[in-house]
Amino acid sequence: MTFTAQQIADFLKGEIVGNPDVEVDNFAKIEEGKPRTIAFLSNPKYTHYIYETKADIVLVNRDFTPDKPVSATLIKVPDAYAALAALLELANSLAPVKKGIEEMSFVSPSAKLGENVYVGAFAYIGEQVEIGRDAKIYPQAYIGDNVKIGNNVTIYAGVKIYHGCVIGDNCILHAGAVIGADGFGFSKQEGIYHKIPQIGNVVLEEEVEVGANTTIDRAVMGSTIIRKGVKLDNLIQIAHNCEIGRNTVMAAQVGIAGSAKLGEGCVLGGQVGIGGHITIGSHSQIGAQSGIISNTPEGSEVMGSPAYPVKNFFKSSIIIPKLPDMYRQLNALEKEIRELKKQLS
Amino acid sequence: MTFTAQQIADFLKGEIVGNPDVEVDNFAKIEEGKPRTIAFLSNPKYTHYIYETKADIVLVNRDFTPDKPVSATLIKVPDAYAALAALLELANSLAPVKKGIEEMSFVSPSAKLGENVYVGAFAYIGEQVEIGRDAKIYPQAYIGDNVKIGNNVTIYAGVKIYHGCVIGDNCILHAGAVIGADGFGFSKQEGIYHKIPQIGNVVLEEEVEVGANTTIDRAVMGSTIIRKGVKLDNLIQIAHNCEIGRNTVMAAQVGIAGSAKLGEGCVLGGQVGIGGHITIGSHSQIGAQSGIISNTPEGSEVMGSPAYPVKNFFKSSIIIPKLPDMYRQLNALEKEIRELKKQLS
Amino acid sequence: MTFTAQQIADFLKGEIVGNPDVEVDNFAKIEEGKPRTIAFLSNPKYTHYIYETKADIVLVNRDFTPDKPVSATLIKVPDAYAALAALLELANSLAPVKKGIEEMSFVSPSAKLGENVYVGAFAYIGEQVEIGRDAKIYPQAYIGDNVKIGNNVTIYAGVKIYHGCVIGDNCILHAGAVIGADGFGFSKQEGIYHKIPQIGNVVLEEEVEVGANTTIDRAVMGSTIIRKGVKLDNLIQIAHNCEIGRNTVMAAQVGIAGSAKLGEGCVLGGQVGIGGHITIGSHSQIGAQSGIISNTPEGSEVMGSPAYPVKNFFKSSIIIPKLPDMYRQLNALEKEIRELKKQLS
Repeated sequence: MTFTAQQIADFLKGEIVGNPDVEVDNFAKIEEGKPRTIAFLSNPKYTHYIYETKADIVLVNRDFTPDKPVSATLIKVPDAYAALAALLELANSLAPVKKGIEEMSFVSPSAKLGENVYVGAFAYIGEQVEIGRDAKIYPQAYIGDNVKIGNNVTIYAGVKIYHGCVIGDNCILHAGAVIGADGFGFSKQEGIYHKIPQIGNVVLEEEVEVGANTTIDRAVMGSTIIRKGVKLDNLIQIAHNCEIGRNTVMAAQVGIAGSAKLGEGCVLGGQVGIGGHITIGSHSQIGAQSGIISNTPEGSEVMGSPAYPVKNFFKSSIIIPKLPDMYRQLNALEKEIRELKKQLS
Repeated sequence: MTFTAQQIADFLKGEIVGNPDVEVDNFAKIEEGKPRTIAFLSNPKYTHYIYETKADIVLVNRDFTPDKPVSATLIKVPDAYAALAALLELANSLAPVKKGIEEMSFVSPSAKLGENVYVGAFAYIGEQVEIGRDAKIYPQAYIGDNVKIGNNVTIYAGVKIYHGCVIGDNCILHAGAVIGADGFGFSKQEGIYHKIPQIGNVVLEEEVEVGANTTIDRAVMGSTIIRKGVKLDNLIQIAHNCEIGRNTVMAAQVGIAGSAKLGEGCVLGGQVGIGGHITIGSHSQIGAQSGIISNTPEGSEVMGSPAYPVKNFFKSSIIIPKLPDMYRQLNALEKEIRELKKQLS
Repeated sequence: MTFTAQQIADFLKGEIVGNPDVEVDNFAKIEEGKPRTIAFLSNPKYTHYIYETKADIVLVNRDFTPDKPVSATLIKVPDAYAALAALLELANSLAPVKKGIEEMSFVSPSAKLGENVYVGAFAYIGEQVEIGRDAKIYPQAYIGDNVKIGNNVTIYAGVKIYHGCVIGDNCILHAGAVIGADGFGFSKQEGIYHKIPQIGNVVLEEEVEVGANTTIDRAVMGSTIIRKGVKLDNLIQIAHNCEIGRNTVMAAQVGIAGSAKLGEGCVLGGQVGIGGHITIGSHSQIGAQSGIISNTPEGSEVMGSPAYPVKNFFKSSIIIPKLPDMYRQLNALEKEIRELKKQLS
């Protein structure tokens, strides 16, 4: 698809500086700009690229004024990043949409599919499943018995949803995600672990996104709950009976142990671990690779394993490489003091 | 399914305190108890919930005596948690069981299936595969050529088992687990890595449970061995030629490098890493996020990366945030000593 | 398959010490050697096993001379490990090769398949896909629309490749790997995260190996690029817009955040985390569980979270368990100095 600067500026209600007739047909990062692409400049630290980019159009913030000549046509908008997102959204909406029930899929006669649902080949829709309108079930997805899936949900290839789980409207589940596998619950008797049946389920509220190969276990009883607007990156583990508050986001490879409760609006860096039965207050920020072993009050900013306030973390991290020197210094001082004491007595 | 307190007490051989005719049809945690549910009280720290729970029945330990009136009917048993497990087991056993070979599955003519095996749609059973009686192969599972699967094994949707692997009786493999992918073995020549073919296999002994999206690599030669009763949570990595001793359990996202040998009855917290060729003694307990880079004697309790005794770990962890202060303090003392020496000379 | 020592020595151009007619039909580690197996001795620390191994043949380096009698037949070669790899390669090449298009696969009429391609049952090949000659697409793999796959690529069971990605010649993708899922990109407005469409792709150059359940996200725009010869172990996360340099290798469970750039020939231990937009110089070595939060120059050898030079890391790690003692010692010294000062004044 080809668009002129004029068409894009009209769509974004932006102001053109340069040639309104220049055409683009793809996006690029400003530092990788090529002819016939549109780039954007939002972070001031990338400003210098605008003078050398080969992109034909650059979206800039309204207050940007170049110091030097710029060969690209500029489109000035209130927020260049948001404008880019809107354009990407537009580009995305023009992509062909999968529709219909492909042959070689398995749909249980007792399943109820809403209007306009896509079911890919080799997808498996179990008994009594309910799927809302405009949902897309890609090939090789597995929807266990009695699962309920809302409207406009996207289930990518190979997602597995165990029986009885509930997926809210507009959720997106990426390939390989596993929803509702058994929680890790055993009773130990004479050194041998006996399985505790896990008869609960997983509930994803609306607008949840689940990354590729992320796993969310079913509750032992009741539900593991992922609240509205939560975004989970790839390869995350959410154990049984956790509850993740609204609009909390987690980077890849985070692990949350059983029955932990996270508040709203938290941000977890990659590879964070949260202990079992821990409560994390809303709007907490937890640095990458942190380990949380005690309850954390609202608005905490912590890092480390075990975690402590992030400001102290970076200060202590500077000292850690100096520890061998400190150790020698400390022992040298002890010696000196002993000698001073000798001299004095 | 509805049960009265009397029916449940009879099944558990427990003693009723309250109304024997009250009916329940679901389980709940005591703090989330609703009418028509049964809860349990085992951990004394939850005792206060028993006076306010809306659950109609609560399982309690025989020695429990309420301080205040309790609206729920109590059932007294020797071990409330074990009794709950027995009830969950009962509830689970009443769930419908998948049976038969679904159409649109692929079963090689040379495969041998035991009595009463379930094969879901889009499951793939390769050449010369042997599957024991009562095994369940869920949809989209892949069983490579020459794999042997024991009796009463459950292979959930989308599990992939490469050729030649062996799965013992009563094992449970959760969705997305990958058994027998190539170990990560390369020889480096002039900066380029050349693949070492991995011609061994993976052997799971009896009663092993493997979590969702966990990966266990095949041996370069010989077998990667997971002994009887091992329980692995989700997203764990077991590299080639490892041997995991009986009844060892690992929380999610643990990674075990090549040729490591773990003893019996070990407990590994989440996100632990074990180095290659390491030996871990039986009954070791390794705290979450630990990194093990040297052999660990039997009965070790360690934590940290690299790991050291867990008691020291928590003591040192308290000091780490104080390091910047210690650093300043140390340098101040050095200065003072220098001045004292000056004064003395 | 059975081979004599003579046949093996001829193939390897090695020299026999012992019985040239002894026959083997399998491989073994020297410490697990059994009759009719061939083992190898490369690492001097295993030398003592050669005097007790039950293997009938042992590959040894040309300069090896036993101190005591050895019952096995020795084959002397320039490099015992490389010779083993060559034999494993030979054994592997004799295994039966999958061929043809299995029924119950889905191949879009617009897809172009090269000569001699294998497509397993329940594999899904989307529109306009191009697959080179000798490629193997195992059962239940998903190849999205417009994907391009080179010659001699192996895609194991259940791999998912999203639309528009490119897989170079001779790549190997293990079961459950997900290539091209959406990058984790959102714009936050009033506490709510809005998805940024991810319209780029993933490009794997030639000879890349991707481990089981590893995930590589598509770029927001442009490409996430994995250069020639990169080897990725299992359960690794590569975020959107990363670029991984030639012949870089990563152990399991590494996580690379968005837009990070790694140079050539780097080696990353297990569970390493690399922050977003970080640059790692070529030939860097990063110890297991390290966290990288700043750019790292070429040839760095670092460890820790946050990482610092590996030599210092091990020295500091020895001190950390002594911190409580140091803390007490420091405070005791401070007290003593105060008393000394009192005495002096």
